[in-house]
Amino acid sequence: MPNPTAAMLVIGDEILSGRTRDANAYHLAGQLTAVGIDLREVRVVPDDHDVIVGALHALRDGYTHVFTSGGIGPTHDDIAADAVAAAFGVGIAVRDDARALLEEAAARRGTVPSPEQLRMARIPDGATLIANDVSGAPGFSLGNVHVMAGVPSIFRAMLDALLPGLQAGVPRESREVRFEVGESRVAGPLRELAERTPALSFGSYPFSDGQVRGTTVVVRGTDATLLDDAIARLEEIRRAVS
Amino acid sequence: MPNPTAAMLVIGDEILSGRTRDANAYHLAGQLTAVGIDLREVRVVPDDHDVIVGALHALRDGYTHVFTSGGIGPTHDDIAADAVAAAFGVGIAVRDDARALLEEAAARRGTVPSPEQLRMARIPDGATLIANDVSGAPGFSLGNVHVMAGVPSIFRAMLDALLPGLQAGVPRESREVRFEVGESRVAGPLRELAERTPALSFGSYPFSDGQVRGTTVVVRGTDATLLDDAIARLEEIRRAVS
Repeated sequence: MPNPTAAMLVIGDEILSGRTRDANAYHLAGQLTAVGIDLREVRVVPDDHDVIVGALHALRDGYTHVFTSGGIGPTHDDIAADAVAAAFGVGIAVRDDARALLEEAAARRGTVPSPEQLRMARIPDGATLIANDVSGAPGFSLGNVHVMAGVPSIFRAMLDALLPGLQAGVPRESREVRFEVGESRVAGPLRELAERTPALSFGSYPFSDGQVRGTTVVVRGTDATLLDDAIARLEEIRRAVS
Repeated sequence: MPNPTAAMLVIGDEILSGRTRDANAYHLAGQLTAVGIDLREVRVVPDDHDVIVGALHALRDGYTHVFTSGGIGPTHDDIAADAVAAAFGVGIAVRDDARALLEEAAARRGTVPSPEQLRMARIPDGATLIANDVSGAPGFSLGNVHVMAGVPSIFRAMLDALLPGLQAGVPRESREVRFEVGESRVAGPLRELAERTPALSFGSYPFSDGQVRGTTVVVRGTDATLLDDAIARLEEIRRAVS
């Protein structure tokens, strides 16, 4: 059975304006790779209702899972929950279980949630909550769309709560061979090896490390024997070009 | 006249697998904001010909400019130039001016380009070259698509060569007010101000800075008077909630 697939939708004007460097896509990519869910696409879109709804339509039909980050919170620019409700054609309202989570978090600080904080308990009909042990305000899953916060510490907490419940695939193992020659020197034999081994994917990445200019070749796949053979062949190539 | 718009297409399995954290989107976002070109979307896609062609079709029709990074180089996984040629329905071949740039760069190292390096002189018909003073191998522009390298130092060099030739817009100024209270406390008056001032965009971003938990409100727009008024009102709000 092929691995589950995934797309990520990053919601936020602050990323597109260059104010903030997104950290969540990189974190999600590593976490999904580790459990054998193949991340196939990332999109970054602004805080614009229609654009978010359009992207949700495109992505949820194309992939097993869609993970979103950003746009949930108490302020006017937090419009992700409403956009998800609109994309699924369902209602949205403050829900008792989400409100209870906010009340618990507020109680730990000796307060009660303000009306503005209760906005974060507005959950689309039919969604399942995603726990958040950092700030209390939950994310949620609706169908194959998982809606999480943009603040990196909260995004990570929500992903930790969500991932164990998703069906894992076969983790793709990744191995590397470092060549201390430029990419062009490796290109010919690498192309031949890649064509002969279509079940593995081969990437070639130039690096420069102080005075050394070189190439890292990354091999990825799920078959350990094929990976062993490919690494052995890459070591031969390395001896030949060094 | 509204500002030119832009999308970015990041091409690379290594970003989606979590091996590499993309740096070019953040750099491009800041550079475009400074010249008044509005970055509206970023997509990250794998080294897959059909997926790249599909994304190019979608993005070049939707935005004034499309900037790509990654997938140009001498190895088998460098397929961006062919995908761009296919998306535009034009041929691709080694071009004399691009070959001359590679020969110059090789001559500075006392060599000549290898056949594999000459792959980097394959340019779609009708494209304009983008200079690269780091490694010599050029990027190119075809129509509204600007094809650049994924290695950050080369991406930046190509963007420096490209940007001055593109029509600039009105840079959107960005100002911030820092509140030492949580987002919920700011949400009500901020929503009112945002609704009253539709020509500006208001973003609210929680931060935690040691013991201080607070909110940065970012206001963006092109009208200095409106920005001054908004900042004055935000300072009033700050005094009221502190």
